[in-house]
Amino acid sequence: MMRMIRRLLIGKPLHNRELTHERLPKWKALSIFSSDALSSVAYGPEQIMLTLVAVPGLLAYGYMGPVAISILLLLAMVALSYVQVAKANPSGGGAYAIAKKNLGEYPALIAAGSVFADYVLTAAVSVSAGTAAIVSAFPALAGHQVIIDLTVLFFVLTMVNLRGVRESSNAFVFPTYAFLLGILALILTGVYQALTHPITAIPAESVVRQQLDWTILFLVLRAFANGCSSMTGIEAIADSVPMFKKPEAKNAVATTYWMAGILAVMFTGITFLTMHYHILPLNDVTVLSQISENVFGRSPAYYYIQITTMLILYLAANTAYNGLPILLSIVAQDGYMPRYLATRGERLTYSNGIILLTIAAAILIIVFQGETGHLISLYAIGVFISFTIAQSSMVIHWFREKSAGWQGRALLNGIGATVTGLVVIIITVTKFIYGAWIILVFIPIMIFIFKSIRSHYNSVAKQLSLPLEDIQDAAIDGPSDHIVIVPVSTPTRVVFETLKYAKVIGNRVFAVHIASDEKTAVKMRKKWATWQPGVELVILHSPYRLLMRPLLHFIEKKEREKRPKDFITVVIPEFETKKWWHRLLHNQTGWILRTSLILKKKIIVTTVPYHLDE
Amino acid sequence: MMRMIRRLLIGKPLHNRELTHERLPKWKALSIFSSDALSSVAYGPEQIMLTLVAVPGLLAYGYMGPVAISILLLLAMVALSYVQVAKANPSGGGAYAIAKKNLGEYPALIAAGSVFADYVLTAAVSVSAGTAAIVSAFPALAGHQVIIDLTVLFFVLTMVNLRGVRESSNAFVFPTYAFLLGILALILTGVYQALTHPITAIPAESVVRQQLDWTILFLVLRAFANGCSSMTGIEAIADSVPMFKKPEAKNAVATTYWMAGILAVMFTGITFLTMHYHILPLNDVTVLSQISENVFGRSPAYYYIQITTMLILYLAANTAYNGLPILLSIVAQDGYMPRYLATRGERLTYSNGIILLTIAAAILIIVFQGETGHLISLYAIGVFISFTIAQSSMVIHWFREKSAGWQGRALLNGIGATVTGLVVIIITVTKFIYGAWIILVFIPIMIFIFKSIRSHYNSVAKQLSLPLEDIQDAAIDGPSDHIVIVPVSTPTRVVFETLKYAKVIGNRVFAVHIASDEKTAVKMRKKWATWQPGVELVILHSPYRLLMRPLLHFIEKKEREKRPKDFITVVIPEFETKKWWHRLLHNQTGWILRTSLILKKKIIVTTVPYHLDE
Repeated sequence: MMRMIRRLLIGKPLHNRELTHERLPKWKALSIFSSDALSSVAYGPEQIMLTLVAVPGLLAYGYMGPVAISILLLLAMVALSYVQVAKANPSGGGAYAIAKKNLGEYPALIAAGSVFADYVLTAAVSVSAGTAAIVSAFPALAGHQVIIDLTVLFFVLTMVNLRGVRESSNAFVFPTYAFLLGILALILTGVYQALTHPITAIPAESVVRQQLDWTILFLVLRAFANGCSSMTGIEAIADSVPMFKKPEAKNAVATTYWMAGILAVMFTGITFLTMHYHILPLNDVTVLSQISENVFGRSPAYYYIQITTMLILYLAANTAYNGLPILLSIVAQDGYMPRYLATRGERLTYSNGIILLTIAAAILIIVFQGETGHLISLYAIGVFISFTIAQSSMVIHWFREKSAGWQGRALLNGIGATVTGLVVIIITVTKFIYGAWIILVFIPIMIFIFKSIRSHYNSVAKQLSLPLEDIQDAAIDGPSDHIVIVPVSTPTRVVFETLKYAKVIGNRVFAVHIASDEKTAVKMRKKWATWQPGVELVILHSPYRLLMRPLLHFIEKKEREKRPKDFITVVIPEFETKKWWHRLLHNQTGWILRTSLILKKKIIVTTVPYHLDE
Repeated sequence: MMRMIRRLLIGKPLHNRELTHERLPKWKALSIFSSDALSSVAYGPEQIMLTLVAVPGLLAYGYMGPVAISILLLLAMVALSYVQVAKANPSGGGAYAIAKKNLGEYPALIAAGSVFADYVLTAAVSVSAGTAAIVSAFPALAGHQVIIDLTVLFFVLTMVNLRGVRESSNAFVFPTYAFLLGILALILTGVYQALTHPITAIPAESVVRQQLDWTILFLVLRAFANGCSSMTGIEAIADSVPMFKKPEAKNAVATTYWMAGILAVMFTGITFLTMHYHILPLNDVTVLSQISENVFGRSPAYYYIQITTMLILYLAANTAYNGLPILLSIVAQDGYMPRYLATRGERLTYSNGIILLTIAAAILIIVFQGETGHLISLYAIGVFISFTIAQSSMVIHWFREKSAGWQGRALLNGIGATVTGLVVIIITVTKFIYGAWIILVFIPIMIFIFKSIRSHYNSVAKQLSLPLEDIQDAAIDGPSDHIVIVPVSTPTRVVFETLKYAKVIGNRVFAVHIASDEKTAVKMRKKWATWQPGVELVILHSPYRLLMRPLLHFIEKKEREKRPKDFITVVIPEFETKKWWHRLLHNQTGWILRTSLILKKKIIVTTVPYHLDE
């Protein structure tokens, strides 16, 4: 039954040889790896604006331009640094792998914790932003955001990924280019309109920059920090160099430039239009939706923008499903996470990692009520920590390798590490109380968990390893005795069957009867005389009507008598009732006995199952 | 730890020979068996009055006298009938035992169900009435009735009865006589005051009887029905004849007369004073408390009455603890209830029955919020059904026995059966919607449960019985083979220990390894060559990475090959981790395997426990 439902939803098991690796052309790779980065223009500029106009009386709208320009410069810097990463690591691998190779265990674990946090946030942020796009277009859906988010998470993303879709599927190509096309058309139309029909209604104060005091500076820096969320996903290409067609590194570098260029154009355009139309935050309507409505009205073009935005955002959430389970499997192979995260499920997907990601993202969405703005406060810090670690690793890499032109490359990555490290500090300071502290608490906790798991696995491996001399010692030990104890209350068919088994497995079998009065003892002896089961009957008197204690005493006595290599097995005669409620009508002695014996180190407990037919 | 707490609360186990039977003198028996009946004057007259004045504009106070007189006549009738029961059943036994002997299974089960319901109600009603008495005296306790009720139920009644106090303890003698003394003093003083200082303030209408139309008649009959709750417990003496000193029957009869006489005097007195002082219902103050305050003021005498009332009521609740567990043990011995209700616990008490009663009474108290009035609506119907069955049984008894003067006795019991049967009908009709229906639904459900349990036990006994010829057949069957299958994933110390055990218990041992790729298969074969464990290694290839299915197929193949008398055991190598969370880090394959195999009828599953030290 359960299996049928699973087959229906997930599909039948796949053979090992069905695991394939396809090489991607640039145009396909661009669409697949850039959905996370490109889709962030749907919430990045909005988050900058929101922060700048959030405090009444402190309208800092005029600073939107400078903030946007800083982000563009940062984007260029990070893209250039990652081009170096792509060139130096043709085998791919994210910040964890690079840091492990160049910087050692702790930086690698910090990177792993940061990337873990950010993949989960990518899923949560992208899903909720995608839902926001569609709710903006169809206001009737307002108020049901969390339900929509969870439905997409469980029934689309999780199901599809458990089935295991090929990353190279064309289904992933279409939304990215459709979105790209829509946004470029929107920007071109918007800019054309702005040039031909200048709006005169822009309030004068909106372009005035207020005096830059400490409060305003803090606000501006926080806007910058929130805007940095647009840059998540930029590392995706460098992490996946081996998936490109030959020459891999060259193609990956070209694709990175393309992605950064497109992102820069879209980001600039959206920011310009936000300022031009003087968009202000509205409940349940995104900034992109407002711009699009201003440019196109509620025309089919408007709905096209909203729907492709939704699609690319859900696709961006899917990149977390492509990335995190693989990261977890690498970390698990190194023994820092539970081993079962490292093995592929029956559909060749890392199903345990997929389920873990879904649960974590669902918790975030529920706790933050699907509000993109609130989730953004936690976002980006992890990404920039991993950027910093990756760039620092590269510096070490160049110093070690000392290949041609290594000084220039080391300098570039050094600047990259410094800048992204600075961004980490800015994000930490400006967003600390808004949620960044959660990530800064989470990462050390994860490192502690990673280390604890690793040390447990090491200790188990040591305890379970078996040196050859132990085997040879065991070989000359000679045959073991096997003492079998069968507790018997009433002599029934079940006891008879159990005794037959006991005689097969052991050479010294004792049937032990606990008699609370002489009457049952006599009855038992009589039955034994009739049965002649060939097993010694031991009657223990228990005038206090205790069952466990005399039996345990007997077992302990036998334990003291036996040689170290001998085994003691307790075989409990028990029957399985046909209906569950019938269990309530029988003594749970077998169960109690098993529970009390399970704690004894050297006793083996077993049951010969006897199933009642009625 | 758990054991220490239990020892402290319940005491150490008692030896079988500590089970004693003490014969009671009349004065002691009276106090012990009559607490239930006598204490009911604390709520019986109150319930009559409450019903008569409950409907505004329908004040039927004037009918209190006639209702009280009817109840006194009924009391006399029932007492006389039960004297016959005491004479005819010197061995004691309640309605269930008498009905089983004379009327057959179904009437006996009806009686058992009715008495079950009424014992639970006795506990619930008496505890809540006792709490009402003490809350009347100390108004600060008002609002905490349910908590007080449950505290008394769990920490006094249950604890004391689990420890097992002798029924004959003097602790039970004192409250009854103290209460008796107090109430008699109250009645004498009250009547004296009434004669010497007639109150003139009684409203004229209070003694006027309204026209007896159908509405009033219904109300009066319901008042009568509620008043019948005073008669519960009257059968206690007749059920316990063997506990009296010789001559048992004669002493029991005399005690019954005494009890009925005292009850009649107290009931009359309290009813008279209720009418004289024209007591009306008050929240959180009982009628008895109002009378006592009118007579004594808030003097020490008043507090004496309230406290002794509380004591005798809690003692009356205790009679349910004396009666129900014994009834359940008799019914369980006959196979109508779970067997473990029939055996004495370590303190020689029927501890399971005691716990069952506590839980049932606690549920009633919580559901009815400790309101005596609401509980009374369910009360008495069960008692009168059991009265009717007991009296009818006696009629049959006399007809069968035909001893000297049997016609007179049969007539007396026949009248008793008719009158109590009539009361059952009155209670059913007048209290049906107020709660009697609950009992009338409960009894058939109980009968269904009784019958189902009995039929299950019968069927199990038949299935488990072992005819001698089966034993002889088994004897000529010859020795059995024992096939042992050990699933092996990684060759570790645990596997090595498990294989040693497997070789001891079986003569055909297979180590089965599921290889998802050729690499692990090769590694496994190599290890086997080094180990030379003397066990055949079977490698099953599973390119779909499924574990259970190939293993189950292998087991099923072996199952088909074996002879009927051969056994198959699967020994699962598993280690016990030291800390609970370590479990999360290991595959639960062992557990899953055990769960899937437990449903297979003929496979024995066992584990050689290997405990990790770290």
